[in-house]
Amino acid sequence: MNINDINPAALKVKPSAMRDFDREISSDPKIVKLTLGEPNFNVPEHIKQATIQAVRDNDSHYPYFWGHDDLRQAASKYYKEKFGYNYDENQIVVTVGATEAVMDSVRTLFAPGDGIIILNPSYPLYDACADLCELNIIHIDTSKTNYILTPESLQKAIDDHPDIKVKGFIINDPNNPTGVAYSEDQLKALVPVIKKNNLWVLSDEIYGELTYGVKHYSLSQWLPDQTIIMNGLSKSHAMTGYRLGFIFGPNPFINQIAKVHQFTVTTPASIVQDAASEALNHGQNDAEPMRLEYDKRRKFVQESLNNLGFNVITPGGAFYIYAVIPASLNLDSWAFVKKLAKEYHIGIFPGAAFGDDKSIRISYAASDEALKAAMKGISQMVKDLEKTPS
Amino acid sequence: MNINDINPAALKVKPSAMRDFDREISSDPKIVKLTLGEPNFNVPEHIKQATIQAVRDNDSHYPYFWGHDDLRQAASKYYKEKFGYNYDENQIVVTVGATEAVMDSVRTLFAPGDGIIILNPSYPLYDACADLCELNIIHIDTSKTNYILTPESLQKAIDDHPDIKVKGFIINDPNNPTGVAYSEDQLKALVPVIKKNNLWVLSDEIYGELTYGVKHYSLSQWLPDQTIIMNGLSKSHAMTGYRLGFIFGPNPFINQIAKVHQFTVTTPASIVQDAASEALNHGQNDAEPMRLEYDKRRKFVQESLNNLGFNVITPGGAFYIYAVIPASLNLDSWAFVKKLAKEYHIGIFPGAAFGDDKSIRISYAASDEALKAAMKGISQMVKDLEKTPS
Repeated sequence: MNINDINPAALKVKPSAMRDFDREISSDPKIVKLTLGEPNFNVPEHIKQATIQAVRDNDSHYPYFWGHDDLRQAASKYYKEKFGYNYDENQIVVTVGATEAVMDSVRTLFAPGDGIIILNPSYPLYDACADLCELNIIHIDTSKTNYILTPESLQKAIDDHPDIKVKGFIINDPNNPTGVAYSEDQLKALVPVIKKNNLWVLSDEIYGELTYGVKHYSLSQWLPDQTIIMNGLSKSHAMTGYRLGFIFGPNPFINQIAKVHQFTVTTPASIVQDAASEALNHGQNDAEPMRLEYDKRRKFVQESLNNLGFNVITPGGAFYIYAVIPASLNLDSWAFVKKLAKEYHIGIFPGAAFGDDKSIRISYAASDEALKAAMKGISQMVKDLEKTPS
Repeated sequence: MNINDINPAALKVKPSAMRDFDREISSDPKIVKLTLGEPNFNVPEHIKQATIQAVRDNDSHYPYFWGHDDLRQAASKYYKEKFGYNYDENQIVVTVGATEAVMDSVRTLFAPGDGIIILNPSYPLYDACADLCELNIIHIDTSKTNYILTPESLQKAIDDHPDIKVKGFIINDPNNPTGVAYSEDQLKALVPVIKKNNLWVLSDEIYGELTYGVKHYSLSQWLPDQTIIMNGLSKSHAMTGYRLGFIFGPNPFINQIAKVHQFTVTTPASIVQDAASEALNHGQNDAEPMRLEYDKRRKFVQESLNNLGFNVITPGGAFYIYAVIPASLNLDSWAFVKKLAKEYHIGIFPGAAFGDDKSIRISYAASDEALKAAMKGISQMVKDLEKTPS
């Protein structure tokens, strides 16, 4: 076969450096991994029991492609109570994790050539979806504004690209990789610019239940007719491998995305939908013990890194510490994480995987022992580097 | 919001008449449904037990995005033994059912504007994928050639459209909706035309284990470098609602589609991948008792319809009877199935859902009682129609 036969847009998509690097270092038996956004908790027992019951009850036949009716009803109620979402069951489609929710949303809304704004750093899925859909990507560097999108930078990105028809932007709040959580004021400040420019908001709120000392807000509160929410149970209920997500949005959009979803996957697994109903109906507090643990670990990692001279943004949510590598170490992010993995057997992700080569991301969704070992390894590497004459 | 904001390619995709009609008639408590391609068997007990064990063992974390290594190894072995596929684990990606396998394949290979050949009648997913990817669709009507693609009609379709760069075609064998299964000779006859025109073959072989008195062959046997196979466990192991499929193909293609797959869904559910490993390692004969049942039902339905004056193609595979509506009844396919559902409480699908308004499709993946009731209902409707002066 000839590689040139392949769709150029597919060729253009960058492979996920994250998953490949994670797999590569996993072959080291001594490696301690703080790489993937993977809770070290298991699925809560009551959800496991519901899944087992669904298997026994033979819920193994085709579900309706929008998702089980009772699951969409449960999602409507659950997220209204948690975050004030205002969507009935006919404004919700059940997806294969938040990943499918993001891909379907981008694909349903944007036509080839449309402009999309993506923040930098950000989760690499967004650029991949935009590349595959042949969109014109405008990146906004948020490192100068504490990793928060401001109304000024949003307006400037549009003004700087008069040739591009910007249709919308992706916001991820709480944020992966930086851990920042937007305040109510920070979100409200964006509303006039969004309205003025008639933008769609694609709001990835997968970490919404994991915030520390701050409340989670959603732009959909002020912009219900132009916001699409992508969410799911991977982080709130430690169900990453179950692959269960949701899209919430205004009806005319949801009716269209339901088709795209149907022809992409039909539905997520029926037994997983039953697990999700249990999570939403009886697992309102499942995230809380995890959140409290994450909060302790967050403080430990932040303090440890600060003591080593890293500039660490205080995370308000998610389970990542994002830290600028001290300039004195003279290492870009790939060099840093590769050395750390190879010589100190500690696995973390480079900022480069998120479009920013000056920082590192540490997932603290890991055991206390792993976090302690990691901090020790980083500390040792920094000391060894400082001893080495450059 | 403004509907014109939405990607015109998404707007163009026709909603699935099948799923919507099925849902509509399901609200009738008296309805007997022979609509969806949904086995009335449950998942085999040993696979259910493996799924339960996976839940208990907390296999709920992110799997590697290509799919579990042991599952891809098992798939390589299983399909080699079943159908002579010749793909190692690095040429296999695990998908969310055959649906995702089809969508990802179309999307990875074809760029907007590329030509794709789709047979008529055919499963509506193919047109939907092609529309969403903005392809130039060329339909070949197979009703004049016993619903089999011939080398002459394939070459003619290309010759008739010199302005379109035809990159490949989709073949579904055994076929939904017609039930035809290609013989070795019928497939081999296509090879020279495929080679001459340098075409890609997208081969949907989801019904490969369900054939009656004939063996299943795959074009990949003769064209390994230009065939992509889409398959899965929905039909062979009655696992429709578990959503587990596979893509097999040459390495340079598989490496590209793995990215598209990853950014579309990440992976299918990890517990479902464990279920699939069990199916492939210890369920080699799971399809056989189902196949024997289907074969009996197939004969019953075919005979019943023949007696009522329908022209029925003898199905060599899958679990559908496809029948031309007698001209004397003076009904198109929608009028036929709507009248049958409303007045006789029997649900079947119109040929129109597959691009052919002269026929009906009956799924015989249903209980004997349902099939008997359905034949009685159709018989009664035909008699009532013949009594009515037109």
